[in-house]
Amino acid sequence: MSDTYVLVHGAWHTGAELEPAADFIRKAGHTVHCPTLKGNRPGDDRGAIGLADAVQSLCDFVTDNDLHAIRLAGHSWGGMVISGAAEVLAERIARLIYVNAFVPDPGESLTDLVPPIYVGLFDSLAQANGDAVMLPFPIWREAFINDADLALATSAYAKLNLQPYKTFTDKSTISKPMAAFEIGKSYVNATSDTALPHSLPWHPRLSEKLGLFRYVQCEGSHEVWFTNPEAIAQALVIAGRD
Amino acid sequence: MSDTYVLVHGAWHTGAELEPAADFIRKAGHTVHCPTLKGNRPGDDRGAIGLADAVQSLCDFVTDNDLHAIRLAGHSWGGMVISGAAEVLAERIARLIYVNAFVPDPGESLTDLVPPIYVGLFDSLAQANGDAVMLPFPIWREAFINDADLALATSAYAKLNLQPYKTFTDKSTISKPMAAFEIGKSYVNATSDTALPHSLPWHPRLSEKLGLFRYVQCEGSHEVWFTNPEAIAQALVIAGRD
Amino acid sequence: MSDTYVLVHGAWHTGAELEPAADFIRKAGHTVHCPTLKGNRPGDDRGAIGLADAVQSLCDFVTDNDLHAIRLAGHSWGGMVISGAAEVLAERIARLIYVNAFVPDPGESLTDLVPPIYVGLFDSLAQANGDAVMLPFPIWREAFINDADLALATSAYAKLNLQPYKTFTDKSTISKPMAAFEIGKSYVNATSDTALPHSLPWHPRLSEKLGLFRYVQCEGSHEVWFTNPEAIAQALVIAGRD
Repeated sequence: MSDTYVLVHGAWHTGAELEPAADFIRKAGHTVHCPTLKGNRPGDDRGAIGLADAVQSLCDFVTDNDLHAIRLAGHSWGGMVISGAAEVLAERIARLIYVNAFVPDPGESLTDLVPPIYVGLFDSLAQANGDAVMLPFPIWREAFINDADLALATSAYAKLNLQPYKTFTDKSTISKPMAAFEIGKSYVNATSDTALPHSLPWHPRLSEKLGLFRYVQCEGSHEVWFTNPEAIAQALVIAGRD
Repeated sequence: MSDTYVLVHGAWHTGAELEPAADFIRKAGHTVHCPTLKGNRPGDDRGAIGLADAVQSLCDFVTDNDLHAIRLAGHSWGGMVISGAAEVLAERIARLIYVNAFVPDPGESLTDLVPPIYVGLFDSLAQANGDAVMLPFPIWREAFINDADLALATSAYAKLNLQPYKTFTDKSTISKPMAAFEIGKSYVNATSDTALPHSLPWHPRLSEKLGLFRYVQCEGSHEVWFTNPEAIAQALVIAGRD
Repeated sequence: MSDTYVLVHGAWHTGAELEPAADFIRKAGHTVHCPTLKGNRPGDDRGAIGLADAVQSLCDFVTDNDLHAIRLAGHSWGGMVISGAAEVLAERIARLIYVNAFVPDPGESLTDLVPPIYVGLFDSLAQANGDAVMLPFPIWREAFINDADLALATSAYAKLNLQPYKTFTDKSTISKPMAAFEIGKSYVNATSDTALPHSLPWHPRLSEKLGLFRYVQCEGSHEVWFTNPEAIAQALVIAGRD
């Protein structure tokens, strides 16, 4: 059975960083797309682009390529984007896959779902830098890519790009809770992921907002895409199959 | 050291589904029995049989076969049954092993220990079907056997049998909390088991009702008996040894 | 890159029990010291020695050997000791590593951080035995070394020594919360460790007192030093590197 995957990157990333994992999924016989969303492309106006622009760019990618029966996976902030796209693209989606990803309720923003200490940090970074934010390296190294050595942590950090802060503060325009969407849903949890503190965790706090869903876990950090792309690819295939 | 195991199946199952795991335990040098309890046998009156009948059938099995120093393991609903049997069979039991299993307090039923949404579902299914219930396939596939592919999920589902609902709603008649039973106790936790939501989890919510107990975990879903019988067998041997 | 590790044992242990893991770290190219603290040495007056004595003996070891840029790891109660030493030795420490270890706030003792049932038990044991306590074997076997067979559980227990109870009840004299120390910090969590019940867990309850920290997990019990020294050594290297 050959399935079609669309992998949606998280904040500060582009689709390119997901390609090593995508290659492992392709080796299992599937088709995989890793688009880079509006807001994370070279030359994008990072002070103006918001969540709706990112969602629209994903919808455009799917319809422009006329994709059907897709396994639509979103990592981290990408969960905000695939949730928004689910309403528009419902008939083209076989399954939504959240990968340590945010699951909004109607009217919730990413900043509603993270610890206040992160919101304060991002607010001040955005103010100082034209409404675009970069994750500070110490947080990246300790809390996001804790399973890498310093060389990998450093080279991976060099690939990140500035995130438009409006994509974090804009509220989701979904019309109903994700549990009410009649689409297959999976949640993939990398169990050493401390990008959100385990006292305010990805799973089950956010995953259970999906209603009935399939849980798949793998070992790794938030950035397992860099540290163990084969492990996250295997988890995605288990999460994405019928 | 050769030990004697009795593996007690969960709701909707028979002993036959535990045989692949039992075979791995036998290869490690032990004797293993997988009885099918009253209520899950062909021809049983599923509208009338209750928890006490299931407990009695387990006690009969153990005494009829004159088993001693047994490692008595119960899976899921089977935890209700081995708890009831512990009082009657205490001198024949070396250790109780709960495998993602319910641990009742005196007077608690299984329906007291699951999310209200499940109780509502089971109530309506029982009303419509002569007080016997079947687990709906979508819940089975996503929340019980999340680590299987669709073919295995389907073939395993075909082996299930109707569960007498009285075995879920009858209250445990144990005379004291399980923590007060002076028997060795272990709790085996398959860490991807979402048959109970992780916000209302098997462990530590139910396991810690045992008082002092030995914790053993393995990777797998609630139905790891089908998806990885060797892993659950290894966990059972670690849980069951002195 | 060759790093210098100092591994600080937990209560009832000496440095000798950490040597098998230390050997695996040495094989990875590092220097490792496993001192035995004041209070756990032959002939020590176990009725009189307190937490400050243990901290002082660690500081003496580090300065006597003129160690620098150390990865200072503390197991269990050893977390109380490395926290106290962090203030004195700050310029000699590259990173603090807590291994299923206690993290005190200023003025907190170990007995402030464990379940009341343990405090009551230790109180009565200390009263009966000149203010020194031994962990009862049933708790050791079921809750501390749950992943061992009985032979290893027994032989490892025979290596334990009486713990001065004042080292549990003395309050930490650190001047500020550990989160305020500007030193690298890691927390290693053996995921089957039930020495603290998972309803009152090591992680994230105690780990998040560190502020920004690196999380590393491995499979094993509280006594993974005996049951899988290679696994804990690998986790320590991931936790300790820059």
